[in-house]
Amino acid sequence: MSEFDLIRRHLTGLGSPRADVLVDVGDDCALLRVRDGQDVALTTDTLVSGIHFYPDCDPEALGWKSLAVNLSDLAAMGAEPAWVSLALTLPDADEGWLASFGRGFADLAKSTGVRLVGGDLTRGPLSITVQAQGLVPAGKALRRGGARPGDLVCVSGTLGDAGLALRQMAAGHAADASIRRRLERPTPRLRLGTALRGVATSAIDLSDGLLSDLGHILASSGCGADIERARLPLTSPVSAALSGESDWRLPLASGDDYELCFTLPPGLAARLPALAGSADCELTVIGSIVSEAGLRVLRPDGSEWTFGGRGFDHFRA
Amino acid sequence: MSEFDLIRRHLTGLGSPRADVLVDVGDDCALLRVRDGQDVALTTDTLVSGIHFYPDCDPEALGWKSLAVNLSDLAAMGAEPAWVSLALTLPDADEGWLASFGRGFADLAKSTGVRLVGGDLTRGPLSITVQAQGLVPAGKALRRGGARPGDLVCVSGTLGDAGLALRQMAAGHAADASIRRRLERPTPRLRLGTALRGVATSAIDLSDGLLSDLGHILASSGCGADIERARLPLTSPVSAALSGESDWRLPLASGDDYELCFTLPPGLAARLPALAGSADCELTVIGSIVSEAGLRVLRPDGSEWTFGGRGFDHFRA
Repeated sequence: MSEFDLIRRHLTGLGSPRADVLVDVGDDCALLRVRDGQDVALTTDTLVSGIHFYPDCDPEALGWKSLAVNLSDLAAMGAEPAWVSLALTLPDADEGWLASFGRGFADLAKSTGVRLVGGDLTRGPLSITVQAQGLVPAGKALRRGGARPGDLVCVSGTLGDAGLALRQMAAGHAADASIRRRLERPTPRLRLGTALRGVATSAIDLSDGLLSDLGHILASSGCGADIERARLPLTSPVSAALSGESDWRLPLASGDDYELCFTLPPGLAARLPALAGSADCELTVIGSIVSEAGLRVLRPDGSEWTFGGRGFDHFRA
Repeated sequence: MSEFDLIRRHLTGLGSPRADVLVDVGDDCALLRVRDGQDVALTTDTLVSGIHFYPDCDPEALGWKSLAVNLSDLAAMGAEPAWVSLALTLPDADEGWLASFGRGFADLAKSTGVRLVGGDLTRGPLSITVQAQGLVPAGKALRRGGARPGDLVCVSGTLGDAGLALRQMAAGHAADASIRRRLERPTPRLRLGTALRGVATSAIDLSDGLLSDLGHILASSGCGADIERARLPLTSPVSAALSGESDWRLPLASGDDYELCFTLPPGLAARLPALAGSADCELTVIGSIVSEAGLRVLRPDGSEWTFGGRGFDHFRA
């Protein structure tokens, strides 16, 4: 079966039909129409075999996750996802693998209103690049640079689950099903992102770990933050794993959670329960923005907790 | 130096500043504004080391080419290029390599009005995925499906140069400088693409070889074509290489030319010199569209030339 046949069979028509997609397959480019008054948010992320996932990773989960990590960036901007393109590099034309991958990708695309509008299938070491575009009312995108001293620092969901699943799997254990699902099928917080428009002063998604990602908000906003370790939202498997001081890197510095971290003016704290309800996820205040630069994590006794690593960085020496 | 530092130093601010780019770096997504009355054309292409280029390929040429192959798809739709994103996977943080790559990418981006608005840098086997977006007045995009019997089949530039350069290099010879440049620094035919709006009945870019790519026009348009082998536009190195019948695969079935193939109503033939002038490239009529399905290549004596292979297909058995 040829490249064109494989694409036609497994990678076309994925996701939700959309009236703003004028052409999705069968030409040199896709053609898309943007409604006046909407800005386009664009992001791209690559997953490489052996770096971001195990080579024997379930292809259906990989299809889901490769889309999810991109939609998470759209959520962090308050954008509604619309169109995605997929560049897939495979060592061989394994049709079963491709069918499973397409199924996982399509599951998430359908449930989030996304249409796959373009792609490229090439031979080579297994690697997946997704580029996603979302729409946001003009001028309403959430940015990283708007946090102000006094703002509350909030996170959605729980922290460290994906990191714990990965640690268990790296040690050769079977990961707990619930946290393994968090690693393999993260839920992009799209409804939260749109609910935070005009409410949050800044937002980012947690892909590299809280310290690293919140650090980007602080750098963009020109301020610092105090985080209370005891307030971090944890599932019971992660709580149980925190036997020593160094284990706190799980919720603070392990990646792949794909929750949102955002800042909220203190006067809007009363809105959190309603936001959590409309976004269908827990929201937790974990600290506050301060004018002094730097990110401090405070132990229950108020002393400062320090830790060498700050996040996941591919090329750090 | 960290991933973020490397991106900041070599992969930000590449290309032409544009007023419609509201955010390009430093946030979860880029933010773009589309003027009302414009459609967005979107394409993506991956280049993999060892498949699409030699691992020791000059990184500056690679930077140029990885953008050029995508802009060529925009040209084929009649779109003006606007924004690109770059997902780069590198085996190690080789700063010299990255600087050269960025230089080649930026050279073409600046000369074509394109802005790099997003990217991802990951560690892994060398691979480059570019996604490009262009703008075209609503409803004016060139499509593959509009060719009609009687239309002239035209191509820009010359055919087979890149294929010959690749053949010479694969045989361990130094390729002629002029044709090697055609392989390594192809010129996307952007001015031709916009000039063909409202004129050509169909268009495609020649990435996989004339027979394969023209075949897509014929399949989409539901017709056939007769091509006269003697009319194919050839440079002297390619002409000199055509010593036998099988060598005709060079201009007919080798890829990487990145010229445009398009169809023109016969009544518009007189416009070709003006189109060639405004696009600053040769345009040649090589045959015509016929109602009978299939693509026939005719020898100078009118007999039909046949050839087994039809193009480049990664996964064909």
